[in-house]
Amino acid sequence: MGSQEQLLQHTLHYEIPLTQAMGIEVLEVSEESVTLRAPLENNINHKSTAFGGNLYSVAVLAGWGLIFSRLQALNLQAHIVIQESSIQYLRPIKQDLRASCRITSETAFKRSIEMFRRKGKSRIKLDVTVAGQEGVAVLFNGHYVIHS
Amino acid sequence: MGSQEQLLQHTLHYEIPLTQAMGIEVLEVSEESVTLRAPLENNINHKSTAFGGNLYSVAVLAGWGLIFSRLQALNLQAHIVIQESSIQYLRPIKQDLRASCRITSETAFKRSIEMFRRKGKSRIKLDVTVAGQEGVAVLFNGHYVIHS
Repeated sequence: MGSQEQLLQHTLHYEIPLTQAMGIEVLEVSEESVTLRAPLENNINHKSTAFGGNLYSVAVLAGWGLIFSRLQALNLQAHIVIQESSIQYLRPIKQDLRASCRITSETAFKRSIEMFRRKGKSRIKLDVTVAGQEGVAVLFNGHYVIHS
Repeated sequence: MGSQEQLLQHTLHYEIPLTQAMGIEVLEVSEESVTLRAPLENNINHKSTAFGGNLYSVAVLAGWGLIFSRLQALNLQAHIVIQESSIQYLRPIKQDLRASCRITSETAFKRSIEMFRRKGKSRIKLDVTVAGQEGVAVLFNGHYVIHS
């Protein structure tokens, strides 16, 4: 695990202690993307599939993690808060989960960061997918607010 | 606690074991509404407010619980699955949470049940609010699928 992954995992476990119970690990952090993994058994329902509430949590945290990592790289401190989101469940997940957030518009992302620098507050929209072994099972879209 | 509340609480704890860790209790079940309570300390983030992922979970379960209870009252067996949803966070919650789902259109609800009886599958849309002591903090809208 690289130092960026370690920092994000430590931060998630500290900021949101429930992520420890969910078994969330940071698989990968880059400029453009973050991938989290969580074991099925920590996030399961009685039907032996992932609970929809926890699929949402892993997704919202992948987006949170991407913003955190980018701000970190830019040496910016901010509070990151989810403001609204939507989620679609395409199929059940019966294996460990992977949530991936990837920046789709670098231009829009940079504009949001610039707005935050000027006004101390800004909004960032991100898409996240959650997959099991059978491919993408969940589509998530989140609007986050960053503020000083 | 009445027998309807006991049945729903037992079912939630059995079907989704994570609801036990979340400390979810069923406060009230009626024909038109379900209210769940969860303690802040089981659902907290580092800022001492409720974690957005768990606010989502409590909301999605209130809707699930309402459908479960209505089907139970009608002696119908069905799988209840969340298909898609959206959520808005209006303000942080710093106290124990209450999630309330109330049927807004009895006509639409009955039509969905009738469709399920005929086709073995149907869709139900529900609104849920989550509140702390300072009033409503979260608006949730979920589309559930019931199928035999």
